[in-house]
Amino acid sequence: MTAFIGVDWGTTNLRAWRIDGHGKIQDTVELPHGVSQLSPGEAPVLFERQVHRPLGSDLPVLMCGMVGSNLGWRAIDYVACPADRSTLAAGVASVRARPPIRIVPGLRCAGIKAASDIMRGEETQILGWIETASTHARGRHIICLPGTHSKWAIVRDGAVERFVTAMTGELFHVLRTHSILAAGTSGFDAAAFAAGVDAAGDGGGLSIRIFSARTRQVADGAAPAETASYLSGLLIGSEIASISSLLDCSAADPITLIAAPVLRERYASALAQRSWSSVWMDGVEAAVAGLQALVRQGVLHDA
Amino acid sequence: MTAFIGVDWGTTNLRAWRIDGHGKIQDTVELPHGVSQLSPGEAPVLFERQVHRPLGSDLPVLMCGMVGSNLGWRAIDYVACPADRSTLAAGVASVRARPPIRIVPGLRCAGIKAASDIMRGEETQILGWIETASTHARGRHIICLPGTHSKWAIVRDGAVERFVTAMTGELFHVLRTHSILAAGTSGFDAAAFAAGVDAAGDGGGLSIRIFSARTRQVADGAAPAETASYLSGLLIGSEIASISSLLDCSAADPITLIAAPVLRERYASALAQRSWSSVWMDGVEAAVAGLQALVRQGVLHDA
Repeated sequence: MTAFIGVDWGTTNLRAWRIDGHGKIQDTVELPHGVSQLSPGEAPVLFERQVHRPLGSDLPVLMCGMVGSNLGWRAIDYVACPADRSTLAAGVASVRARPPIRIVPGLRCAGIKAASDIMRGEETQILGWIETASTHARGRHIICLPGTHSKWAIVRDGAVERFVTAMTGELFHVLRTHSILAAGTSGFDAAAFAAGVDAAGDGGGLSIRIFSARTRQVADGAAPAETASYLSGLLIGSEIASISSLLDCSAADPITLIAAPVLRERYASALAQRSWSSVWMDGVEAAVAGLQALVRQGVLHDA
Repeated sequence: MTAFIGVDWGTTNLRAWRIDGHGKIQDTVELPHGVSQLSPGEAPVLFERQVHRPLGSDLPVLMCGMVGSNLGWRAIDYVACPADRSTLAAGVASVRARPPIRIVPGLRCAGIKAASDIMRGEETQILGWIETASTHARGRHIICLPGTHSKWAIVRDGAVERFVTAMTGELFHVLRTHSILAAGTSGFDAAAFAAGVDAAGDGGGLSIRIFSARTRQVADGAAPAETASYLSGLLIGSEIASISSLLDCSAADPITLIAAPVLRERYASALAQRSWSSVWMDGVEAAVAGLQALVRQGVLHDA
């Protein structure tokens, strides 16, 4: 395999790795500089100075994430589902010739009702998971990538067949920061989290159920410090309860969580409380594995 | 009836009316000064100077709303449901003796799962509606009071039997102000609103469905200016779709909307789209009628 620089450049941060010809990570750069903070035209300049030069400016680069949106380096067309390694590789776009700098396309599919659904970055993590075991490339699997905008995907025979997005992390953030539920600290309380997961019920009536985060404090004597944990459980529980009808899956399907450790623990706990089993792959490992798989497919070679 | 000053002092504003012995409104004060903006101890001072003196400081006063919370003049105990005019009158609390200044209690009831539900102010509007026709005081009725925290109540034989709260207005506000859905203007687009009502489906998976407000713009070519109307329809549609299972009612029940004209139109339109019929009473008229009913019950007389 070619030595290269792999990059996951998302909305709020950037991670880059220099990967040698044997697929080993030799060096890492992490910046708290996501595409939402870029001014127009800033991406190439910032990348050259803070990532490419420090990691090796003669190396080719493969990027994934929101860097391929109109907020990032350049908007790269989404690839339609179902999409596997070959489909993704065919959609990789070049933004600089020498050394090559290329960007993995996002995915789109039919979402709820008439709307589409979209992802940028998670497709590379899912591909990374598919590549880690031959069993992952066969049969049907449910993948959950929790986050600001959680993605739930059905993978069938090595291709992303369909997915939906839940704005769970963003809802939590805006409600905790700007709403009547903003009171109290954010320390984690496992019992309040479990009570929130339970209060999610069948996932219906979320706008009604979240008011209970207020009343249990104002009318039922719960400590304000519990509110964040309860709300987190309620939102994650609601996401899990709703997914079966919206994605055609059930508790009989073990869930693969691709996540950082903190979110993995919360989702695994909420899934277990609702009798779903889960396995886990680290989100960074998945991104690196996905980028490597595409490089092995030849996306950094000239056409 | 005694001449008196009626006040609805809510979270974000204050409305006061001087009402004569025949129940006619003689003068009005409106202030953009809700209890959320009060510093501790400020309520009596502000009321005396900006409301009581201008409207007649020798007149007795009956207040309802968040003024009876710990953010307002003084926290008044909630009255438990079922609650009718007599129950509410018995819970009225005095905060000053001469001339009397008294506050209508809020209501509490068993909400979703283990949590309670609460209201302050809407109980007075519901009572006002009950008092306007003898048919309202008999049988079973479903009342909807849309707003920042919408209330849906079952009224049976003149008493509030049970209610639930939907944080629809607050969700709309925080998502429109602070989330990825903040782009675009807020001009009303009836077709986008109707599409949102439709996209609410059965009311399940709200955190998933709201992402469609993003994708229809980013991936499906909808104008950013439509996003607010679509999101409004989606949130109101979800509230309506969820209410039947959470409050044990159905489209066979005509809904009484107690609201200001703009919200009334949106809710009536969304209800009609989902085959529910509705009738309307103005929110200010309802509050005044409720305060008058309690004064006729003698709550401003000394015990």
